[in-house]
Amino acid sequence: MKMSRGVEWALHCCLTLAMTGEDEALTAGELARFFDLPKAYLHKQIQALVRAGILSSTPGPGGGYVLARPLDAVSFMDVVAAIDGPDPAFRCDEIRQRGGSGAIGGPIDPGTRCLIDQAMGRADLAWRRELAATSLGSIQTDVGSARPGLAESTRRWFADQPH
Amino acid sequence: MKMSRGVEWALHCCLTLAMTGEDEALTAGELARFFDLPKAYLHKQIQALVRAGILSSTPGPGGGYVLARPLDAVSFMDVVAAIDGPDPAFRCDEIRQRGGSGAIGGPIDPGTRCLIDQAMGRADLAWRRELAATSLGSIQTDVGSARPGLAESTRRWFADQPH
Repeated sequence: MKMSRGVEWALHCCLTLAMTGEDEALTAGELARFFDLPKAYLHKQIQALVRAGILSSTPGPGGGYVLARPLDAVSFMDVVAAIDGPDPAFRCDEIRQRGGSGAIGGPIDPGTRCLIDQAMGRADLAWRRELAATSLGSIQTDVGSARPGLAESTRRWFADQPH
Repeated sequence: MKMSRGVEWALHCCLTLAMTGEDEALTAGELARFFDLPKAYLHKQIQALVRAGILSSTPGPGGGYVLARPLDAVSFMDVVAAIDGPDPAFRCDEIRQRGGSGAIGGPIDPGTRCLIDQAMGRADLAWRRELAATSLGSIQTDVGSARPGLAESTRRWFADQPH
């Protein structure tokens, strides 16, 4: 089971946009250069963040992307769902109702969810709860403590880029 | 993010082997017919369960697969790790150390794990804890209550199959 690599990219881009601030819109090309990522694929992830209401785009010269809301109001779950979709990783194909298993058991009440699916669902929920309880704002605070001066250096790096 | 479909197959096979008992080894072909699954691919999942010490194989005529230990000693985590591997779904590629981001921040102490990776790791741990805390034995008990007679019907179905 592998999560899309775009999740890491999207999380870092959100933190970077929080450092540069809402007055400095960044393009996908600038963010791609900052993290040495393929621009076209990063652009797809950024568009997914826009669709999820996490980023907004500003058009025209000097345009680009900014955070659509404060990072305190963006959870890890929001970003993971935007990039990787909302479906649980485990999909129940109801194999208990197929072949010999389906034949012997008699009809199953459609409202009776497979116990295996229920157990996998509880684990999925524990994962989602943890991701939903962690905001990117809390990470921003911790990054600020762990690496003082990083936000200022980041702003300067983008300001020095040719437009 | 999608989990291998083999996880559902493996979990159901373990429950089925608990119903048929250790005196009745089942082949991959019999289990494939029982759940209407592709035999060759199911065989691969079963071999992964053997490598993980969850099933054991008995050779010769009448041979096949049996549980290597009681289902109370098999957790959902054991089966998921056997089929899908032990790696977390989120992989940190340390993009913070690449491109402009790597250039401005100065060298990062290799012991300082990325805060995004830490947060994703906590969610992964919550998921694993839940899966590790649920044994297939508890599901077996619940299936027995929900569908009385299923174990007996299952035993009869396999006994009636041509060898």
